[in-house]
Amino acid sequence: MDTPYIINTLFTIFATTLIIFMVPGFAMLEAGIVRTKNVTSVLTVNMMIYVVASMSFMLIGFNIAFGGMALPDMSYYAFVMFQMAFVGKAINITSGGVGERSRLLPLTILTIIVGAIIYPLVVNISWGSDFLKGTLLDLNMTDLAGSTVVHSVGGWILLAAILITGPRKGRYQNGKIRVIPASNIPLVVLGAMLLWIGWFGFNGGSVGGIATKELANSVALTIFNTNTAGLAGGLASGIFIYIRYHLFDITMIINGALGGLVAITAGPHLYTSIDSIIIGLIGGILVVVAVPLFDKIRLDDPVGALSVHLVNGIWGTMAVGLFAKDVLIIDQLKGIMVVAVFVFASAFVVIYLINKLSPLRASDDDQMQGLDVGECGVEAYPEFRRTI
Amino acid sequence: MDTPYIINTLFTIFATTLIIFMVPGFAMLEAGIVRTKNVTSVLTVNMMIYVVASMSFMLIGFNIAFGGMALPDMSYYAFVMFQMAFVGKAINITSGGVGERSRLLPLTILTIIVGAIIYPLVVNISWGSDFLKGTLLDLNMTDLAGSTVVHSVGGWILLAAILITGPRKGRYQNGKIRVIPASNIPLVVLGAMLLWIGWFGFNGGSVGGIATKELANSVALTIFNTNTAGLAGGLASGIFIYIRYHLFDITMIINGALGGLVAITAGPHLYTSIDSIIIGLIGGILVVVAVPLFDKIRLDDPVGALSVHLVNGIWGTMAVGLFAKDVLIIDQLKGIMVVAVFVFASAFVVIYLINKLSPLRASDDDQMQGLDVGECGVEAYPEFRRTI
Amino acid sequence: MDTPYIINTLFTIFATTLIIFMVPGFAMLEAGIVRTKNVTSVLTVNMMIYVVASMSFMLIGFNIAFGGMALPDMSYYAFVMFQMAFVGKAINITSGGVGERSRLLPLTILTIIVGAIIYPLVVNISWGSDFLKGTLLDLNMTDLAGSTVVHSVGGWILLAAILITGPRKGRYQNGKIRVIPASNIPLVVLGAMLLWIGWFGFNGGSVGGIATKELANSVALTIFNTNTAGLAGGLASGIFIYIRYHLFDITMIINGALGGLVAITAGPHLYTSIDSIIIGLIGGILVVVAVPLFDKIRLDDPVGALSVHLVNGIWGTMAVGLFAKDVLIIDQLKGIMVVAVFVFASAFVVIYLINKLSPLRASDDDQMQGLDVGECGVEAYPEFRRTI
Repeated sequence: MDTPYIINTLFTIFATTLIIFMVPGFAMLEAGIVRTKNVTSVLTVNMMIYVVASMSFMLIGFNIAFGGMALPDMSYYAFVMFQMAFVGKAINITSGGVGERSRLLPLTILTIIVGAIIYPLVVNISWGSDFLKGTLLDLNMTDLAGSTVVHSVGGWILLAAILITGPRKGRYQNGKIRVIPASNIPLVVLGAMLLWIGWFGFNGGSVGGIATKELANSVALTIFNTNTAGLAGGLASGIFIYIRYHLFDITMIINGALGGLVAITAGPHLYTSIDSIIIGLIGGILVVVAVPLFDKIRLDDPVGALSVHLVNGIWGTMAVGLFAKDVLIIDQLKGIMVVAVFVFASAFVVIYLINKLSPLRASDDDQMQGLDVGECGVEAYPEFRRTI
Repeated sequence: MDTPYIINTLFTIFATTLIIFMVPGFAMLEAGIVRTKNVTSVLTVNMMIYVVASMSFMLIGFNIAFGGMALPDMSYYAFVMFQMAFVGKAINITSGGVGERSRLLPLTILTIIVGAIIYPLVVNISWGSDFLKGTLLDLNMTDLAGSTVVHSVGGWILLAAILITGPRKGRYQNGKIRVIPASNIPLVVLGAMLLWIGWFGFNGGSVGGIATKELANSVALTIFNTNTAGLAGGLASGIFIYIRYHLFDITMIINGALGGLVAITAGPHLYTSIDSIIIGLIGGILVVVAVPLFDKIRLDDPVGALSVHLVNGIWGTMAVGLFAKDVLIIDQLKGIMVVAVFVFASAFVVIYLINKLSPLRASDDDQMQGLDVGECGVEAYPEFRRTI
Repeated sequence: MDTPYIINTLFTIFATTLIIFMVPGFAMLEAGIVRTKNVTSVLTVNMMIYVVASMSFMLIGFNIAFGGMALPDMSYYAFVMFQMAFVGKAINITSGGVGERSRLLPLTILTIIVGAIIYPLVVNISWGSDFLKGTLLDLNMTDLAGSTVVHSVGGWILLAAILITGPRKGRYQNGKIRVIPASNIPLVVLGAMLLWIGWFGFNGGSVGGIATKELANSVALTIFNTNTAGLAGGLASGIFIYIRYHLFDITMIINGALGGLVAITAGPHLYTSIDSIIIGLIGGILVVVAVPLFDKIRLDDPVGALSVHLVNGIWGTMAVGLFAKDVLIIDQLKGIMVVAVFVFASAFVVIYLINKLSPLRASDDDQMQGLDVGECGVEAYPEFRRTI
């Protein structure tokens, strides 16, 4: 009977479509957060990533990740496209965090290497063919949809990229941190909600199928818990900021919600609702605590990607060990560390070399003028008169 | 055989996802309609509602609404999440209508009470466990997806809120009505279309399943008629305004379409295409007629929510009695009135008490300056120079 | 067994929903490309088209296209709504290309005629009841989802409309072409991505069902190849522009991607991945080459619709003959030409007559002031101070 095959294919196409809504999701979120003069640039980076990372993964990366492996009971192309939809996300995390001062050409080269090799290798040892099987480094990490495999990976690459690129011109001056406000809040909210919805596809689709009663329950539980952790994360960060500043800070509510979503991603099929609330609450708090800490150590990250994706990617992966039965914390820790060392080291070397070839950092003049003019030749809002 | 269970679960997840697109839908619509200085505030309210109302319903409200009831043939978590996706909509209707002058803290308290108690009680007697069963107040209303249960509920709460909060500062002065234009029309259109698409999930999912031929036909008919009424509503209001003013007024076309969508919502599974066109046309006309009437009696409602949701919620519920076989108008009327009395009275008391605790109305100064600065500390478009 | 009927219905509803995301998709893309003073106008046109074209097709066109024909194994209303979702797209292509200088009333009349008669006749001879069957003009064209039936049709009507309406005031002056920059790049990107995602529904749904293993594979392959061609198109145009101007031009990347998507649309179920890449690459190049050519012959088309939809509609239809087995180039050519002659001729006559009744072209004064004020009475961004 082919019904399971058919239903799994339909379900995976649905999940993939939701993930692809994250392309405009990231694009709008980042376009809303950066200054007007860099909006076209971040939008171009986002489109470039979708095109270049997907192509690199399709032509090279997919085989590195899944070559020779038996696939789920669904159409081959549905599975490939679902996996391909993931790859850009890791790089989006990176590109957002080095926004407003990074040049497009070296970012494009980085995208090819991450999409074709670095990300696929992490997938290989986590979800894929597993070339480390039987070795000492054989991972036994539980990470359903990528707290580590996607979010931490993006975060580690970002950390390497920030160390090499440096902060935005004028961000840290005379020992002070200059606050740079988001230029378009509606876009931030729109982008965040598209990401949130896309997460249902990310996590739900990662269950691997829906065509038995058990799988259907697992998918529904996964999506329910994913949403719950997002709610809890937004609640936590919102209350935290309200208590401290008596303000309702939408950007922090959103970052808290995204933090909760990242944190739940490693094990949403394994938690109760209460687990999910706790994991999300902690995720939200971690974001509001981490954002000023990264600023303190001068890691300039305009979209808060290190706090949302790296810190919560680690927290989320650990959480499976704490909350789920039969998952060992030590396995989670090992997974986190192996991935961290491999990705940070390889990304650092790669970005270092790219930077020699074509400097990642835009010149001070280009940063002052905005990257839109120098890099893209297109202003984002040419008719709106600006205050700055 | 588990196939129906699986297909219903997949279908309900799909429908739920569409409904959650209404979160950015409402957010963009309202952010586009209000003035620049209040954009962050309405966006924050919308995110707050999604987080707080969903949590309240999940932790308390769901049991009040459906406790002890047999559920459809699908995964439990898919059903809970589908129902949870509804609750925010009722409150969105309220918050939009008191936009540009309401403080966030009391709105948050109201959201908790509506999400945890008021809305769930209405669901209980309409779609749920029905604690009034066998009493004189036992309802026999046909309301598939909430013309009354969602839209009128939001409208009655809004009416209570407007009466207590009063109009925006400067809206009615020296016997004149000051026209306050929308600040961002693309966002209005985007938001409206996301709501429209979300409606397919709202109404289609409310059929309760898709896993028999009869259900599949009912779902397809429901979505088709829902769309048709939206088309007819937009057509009616568009032609009406064109005939009167020789202008193509996009905001009125949109409000007419939304009015048609609200009106069809009580019985889209029961109508012919011609019924749906008539119901939608009347819905669209009701909006353009009602908007100036509410202004005449000084009920200030920046997004036209009373006209779209309350007036058409009533019309739509009555329409089932007029157009569908085997549905008695008297049952519809009774449902409308019982819900009206309960919701308006309880909401009035609740808002009155909240207002004593923490005033709903922002100070004149805060209204002049815009709520974004005082309440949120974040301007929506800090770099765009303004004309006012 | 009803399972195939149910699954096909669910799948078609899903596909239809994706297509309807193209309504905000086109609206945002066009609102972002035109100047601030014409934004409300193009948004109003887009909403008008959705309402009027859908109604015209539902009440008249559907029967012309499919009357008496046996339908796929799914709910009747799912099939009607899927087909109805197509009709507006052809007209959107037209309206975008004559944007910034066309009046709404004649566009509305044109929409009725195209939606009720012209487009349905093309569907009739391509996918529908086929009244030309057995005649010399009997078409044997392979066009899965409308490279010709939707995109070229929109393009031919546009060509007729441009010839009658003329270029925007001031666009071609003293032998020079005045560059008119897009007013809102985030909206352009958002709109393009919504179109891209909608395309999965367009092409995937056109397979006609998913409820056998063969169909499921065909749907997955179709969506995969559709996406691939979009990626390749964006890549090609992006590289082309980078090599020529050393800039990353987001609007050209987007137009290239859309060109690739149009080009794949005639046969995505028949290609390998490599075929899809080649077809998309050529599609992207065709756009960047065609855009300046149309300007050279003074066909003013603010959104590049002729290059994206007409040129690539033709290329995509030819491509099936080149890449797919058992499809004859001569059949494809015949289809392209019959549709071209019928649509261009009938559209030219219709627009010519409409233009006599109510001139399509806005007055120079209205164009200078912007169509928003004169036609709609609503400015798009009344509070943002403008540079021009």
